[in-house]
Amino acid sequence: MSRRTVVGVIGPGANATAQDLANAHRMGRLIAAEGWVTLTGGWNAGVMDAASRGAHEAGGLTLGLLPTRDTEGASPAVDLAIPTGLGEARNNLVVLASDALVCCGMSPGTASEAALALRAGRPLILVAPSPETVSFYGSLGHPAPVGVPDADAAIAELRRIIQSR
Amino acid sequence: MSRRTVVGVIGPGANATAQDLANAHRMGRLIAAEGWVTLTGGWNAGVMDAASRGAHEAGGLTLGLLPTRDTEGASPAVDLAIPTGLGEARNNLVVLASDALVCCGMSPGTASEAALALRAGRPLILVAPSPETVSFYGSLGHPAPVGVPDADAAIAELRRIIQSR
Amino acid sequence: MSRRTVVGVIGPGANATAQDLANAHRMGRLIAAEGWVTLTGGWNAGVMDAASRGAHEAGGLTLGLLPTRDTEGASPAVDLAIPTGLGEARNNLVVLASDALVCCGMSPGTASEAALALRAGRPLILVAPSPETVSFYGSLGHPAPVGVPDADAAIAELRRIIQSR
Amino acid sequence: MSRRTVVGVIGPGANATAQDLANAHRMGRLIAAEGWVTLTGGWNAGVMDAASRGAHEAGGLTLGLLPTRDTEGASPAVDLAIPTGLGEARNNLVVLASDALVCCGMSPGTASEAALALRAGRPLILVAPSPETVSFYGSLGHPAPVGVPDADAAIAELRRIIQSR
Repeated sequence: MSRRTVVGVIGPGANATAQDLANAHRMGRLIAAEGWVTLTGGWNAGVMDAASRGAHEAGGLTLGLLPTRDTEGASPAVDLAIPTGLGEARNNLVVLASDALVCCGMSPGTASEAALALRAGRPLILVAPSPETVSFYGSLGHPAPVGVPDADAAIAELRRIIQSR
Repeated sequence: MSRRTVVGVIGPGANATAQDLANAHRMGRLIAAEGWVTLTGGWNAGVMDAASRGAHEAGGLTLGLLPTRDTEGASPAVDLAIPTGLGEARNNLVVLASDALVCCGMSPGTASEAALALRAGRPLILVAPSPETVSFYGSLGHPAPVGVPDADAAIAELRRIIQSR
Repeated sequence: MSRRTVVGVIGPGANATAQDLANAHRMGRLIAAEGWVTLTGGWNAGVMDAASRGAHEAGGLTLGLLPTRDTEGASPAVDLAIPTGLGEARNNLVVLASDALVCCGMSPGTASEAALALRAGRPLILVAPSPETVSFYGSLGHPAPVGVPDADAAIAELRRIIQSR
Repeated sequence: MSRRTVVGVIGPGANATAQDLANAHRMGRLIAAEGWVTLTGGWNAGVMDAASRGAHEAGGLTLGLLPTRDTEGASPAVDLAIPTGLGEARNNLVVLASDALVCCGMSPGTASEAALALRAGRPLILVAPSPETVSFYGSLGHPAPVGVPDADAAIAELRRIIQSR
């Protein structure tokens, strides 16, 4: 059995903050250092590109699940670009394909992925979440996602999750 | 051209409150009275079933987009049950197939649909939303969804939206 | 229980022959006369449009599952246009949403739907199929689809299928 | 840019013949020897498993797009198992994610993938196809898929296709 562990990194595309990008980039580096695969929504933008570049620079394998039917617009740091042709329905695939997910920043698309992660029972870690994000996901009556201050704390949490599987 | 206007009603299945169910049932009645089609996630549970029954009792047409590959478990008040076989990826279809969406209550699945509605630019009305819901969707940097106190206020808002299209 | 019976009509879009169009149009009329819903891939082209127009002219309800994320390009004879946003992955939804399928003519997209119908165990009727089509689907080691000479023979076969469910 | 070339291998699961399995296994080996990624439908059965094992034994990377929402039942030779949760709608993803496809044997699911490949304009090579398969896909009025006698001829054809992109 050679199955690779896959960690999804989700977050805003166009409207990512500098902090979101820094967190995602370091997240990619740390995921790669563990020998895990970094999965994103694949675009050459925002958190998706930053996480893919971080992982790629650290020698990790990167996977992108694109909403489009070809690979145009994919991050150049994505090794395996999968054009799903599903539009935003691909967000559920990002969730299902991840052994655990890390969220750096928030946007409508990201919010849908975080909610689908709770729905599917996939572990979800929020890096430096806003108070609104913590309150909202905590109010949904499911086990609340874990909030951590930074990427290093997230990787410690991921190690715990992956080892206990 | 005989295209029918479609209004999606979204909300919790198993964990809907009595208030969610009452709002959804009245929402279905009022949508039917306008001559519009009521669309839900199709299950025989919670807000989906209540909205379908309300619409059906008022003589309206009801459409259900099920996550499963057959119609088992569909609400008996759904006239057209569409088994999508897509699992929760069908949530994006509920959004795209709706000219506007009304949200009665909250859950992880509902949260994903509300977020996808913002992402797709579909008008979204929140009926009696919690403070956490209002704060969170308002923080996403998109035009915030409209909050209304009850189904009658929602239908007034819907009339405005549909007429201006 | 008010569940409507749904019959899918599949066939070529741009490259439909005059015979395909005539068969699809009559098919729509006959499906509507039975009180069943006519389901197609929704486009304003070829067999999809012809079947929708036939059904619509006979007072039947028509449903279209579009590959796109909005309803632009839908046949004006489609009452309920569902933009799935799934591209050609929507072909599997056309199959699953149909209680039985009727195939008028052949194309790559149609071939995928006919194959998916066999895969899903949905009854499939081929109207005036080519010898290549009969040989190929008959060679797949599943119960072969039924071939009939025209729409009237197809409706007789459909009546038998629907009544035995 | 580190984008990997992906070759899809499609064919029957449960009902694959000994010849289909031998072709798929050698196909996997040859794809891996080129440095390409081998993509399949992911199951631990038939052509999917044989191609994954062949590629894995030759040190290649293997990717599986499963119809289910978890990785249970995946071939142990699949490195990256992507549970799509889409049922047979995932067949269109197998097509879109492949730079070119090789078909070893035939079944309803395989027939849908071959048809969707023609529809999407993805290069399709048929290894040792039956006369019915050649006649049918040749009759669809698109550029017909290329038929070859064995895996070695297929890899020569693939080299030509990939180099000309």
